[in-house]
Amino acid sequence: MAAKPLRIGIVAPASRIDHALADRVNAIAAAQYGDRVELVFHPQCYLTSGHFAGDDAARAAAFVEVANDPSFEVVWFARGGYGACRLLDLIMPRLTKAAFDKMYVGYSDTGSLLGPLYAKRARSVVHGPMPADIKRSGGETAVKRALGYIVEQAAEAIEPSVASIGSPVAAFNITILSHLLGTPFEPNLEGHVLLLEDVSEPMYRIDRSLFHVTSNPRIRKVAGIRLGRCVDITPNDPDFGEDEVAVMERWCARAGIPYLGRADIGHDVENKVVPFGPWRGA
Amino acid sequence: MAAKPLRIGIVAPASRIDHALADRVNAIAAAQYGDRVELVFHPQCYLTSGHFAGDDAARAAAFVEVANDPSFEVVWFARGGYGACRLLDLIMPRLTKAAFDKMYVGYSDTGSLLGPLYAKRARSVVHGPMPADIKRSGGETAVKRALGYIVEQAAEAIEPSVASIGSPVAAFNITILSHLLGTPFEPNLEGHVLLLEDVSEPMYRIDRSLFHVTSNPRIRKVAGIRLGRCVDITPNDPDFGEDEVAVMERWCARAGIPYLGRADIGHDVENKVVPFGPWRGA
Repeated sequence: MAAKPLRIGIVAPASRIDHALADRVNAIAAAQYGDRVELVFHPQCYLTSGHFAGDDAARAAAFVEVANDPSFEVVWFARGGYGACRLLDLIMPRLTKAAFDKMYVGYSDTGSLLGPLYAKRARSVVHGPMPADIKRSGGETAVKRALGYIVEQAAEAIEPSVASIGSPVAAFNITILSHLLGTPFEPNLEGHVLLLEDVSEPMYRIDRSLFHVTSNPRIRKVAGIRLGRCVDITPNDPDFGEDEVAVMERWCARAGIPYLGRADIGHDVENKVVPFGPWRGA
Repeated sequence: MAAKPLRIGIVAPASRIDHALADRVNAIAAAQYGDRVELVFHPQCYLTSGHFAGDDAARAAAFVEVANDPSFEVVWFARGGYGACRLLDLIMPRLTKAAFDKMYVGYSDTGSLLGPLYAKRARSVVHGPMPADIKRSGGETAVKRALGYIVEQAAEAIEPSVASIGSPVAAFNITILSHLLGTPFEPNLEGHVLLLEDVSEPMYRIDRSLFHVTSNPRIRKVAGIRLGRCVDITPNDPDFGEDEVAVMERWCARAGIPYLGRADIGHDVENKVVPFGPWRGA
């Protein structure tokens, strides 16, 4: 008798995906893991409500249903975009014990959920590629990397600095972390090395978000910051005169936070996996 | 012997202005108030350092010089743009008693200074038009309105709801207030009616900023929120399906904050004056 498959529930807390995308990701998982893995795309992933994959109630209901279902070992967020923060006050009070005994995987906008789930001590919170990354050129690599970590904790999936950092780690989109600070959903990152990335912002907004993040007294207690990639930086008029590394180094220096160099994360197919918390080995 | 003129010091904590702009504002003040008012444009207003009116050290030095000079009764911020937040850790520890016995006037990005000055109980903190508003079509009206309040507390300059609100008030750009929350510079707005406006944001970012602002436990203790104008809203793809009033009403309802209707403030020539704190009459 075959062992039970690893069940991975997929929901879309922000923007929608389509069936063709799900089919491609299913095919990758089937080719790589056969019966060992079962991906379950919740029908909510395909809903449309303006900007969102269904309205707040529909997205919250799907998330709560899958999170609270003990037959799922993993919740994989289908896609970022915008909208995960709108679910927080609807979902967090409804989560049961089963929800905190799971792995959650995503990045970008879905960091709005990863942060609070980490704050509430979910078993495993992971910054890593999502099904929608299949749409990027070479996106199969990113999807396979996420599955490699989810299914077998593949060492090569993991952001290379994580194993040697010696502190617990966490990874966020800069803008998303900024919007959690000072809310009840803010994670306690004291003593962590924080890996940060961003996308589609002009440099003055990255600068302003880093003013906000590095001025926060609790963030000032992190062990250090590593900078992932800031991709698709939109034009700044006039030219900002500094790149993202210079901006980060300056704010870290003013805040007394050690700047520890680059991190191999970002909105691209090279985006490596960052398991939140202390390193437990691969 | 003539009475001493009211001295108004003008500095640019964010973006620069040029001499022609200063000349036009000087002419308006001279025509309206003659020798009763002296506008002193600090030379720092005309500096250029990339995005900014001089580098952080130059902008901070000019601000501290004028703020700490007891011969100035008013500091008027020349222009918004971006950059006032970068001065906070440089200026706040250097302010002396004279700095807190003054009026400060500005809006938009300079709310990054108005908030912390209000938190530190500066005598008078005022959300209102700036010299750079002269560049708008009909901008003389806005500049005259600000001078009317600064020089003679003209009742017609003041945002019409302020006199009848019955609670202390404060006014901010939504994005700027969001970036102060959770920092040491955050003002205590408990019990206040908060007037909020924004500019040049797509609706999903206004929505996200309002998630952040209305999720903050201290902001949830405001007496209510009034919504100023959100101008130059950039396209949202797909259409967001809600306007700024609907977005604000929804977040206020979820946060248990009374939504009190519109406010006559915004990035335009109609922008009325909002003196922070309890109403003291005009």
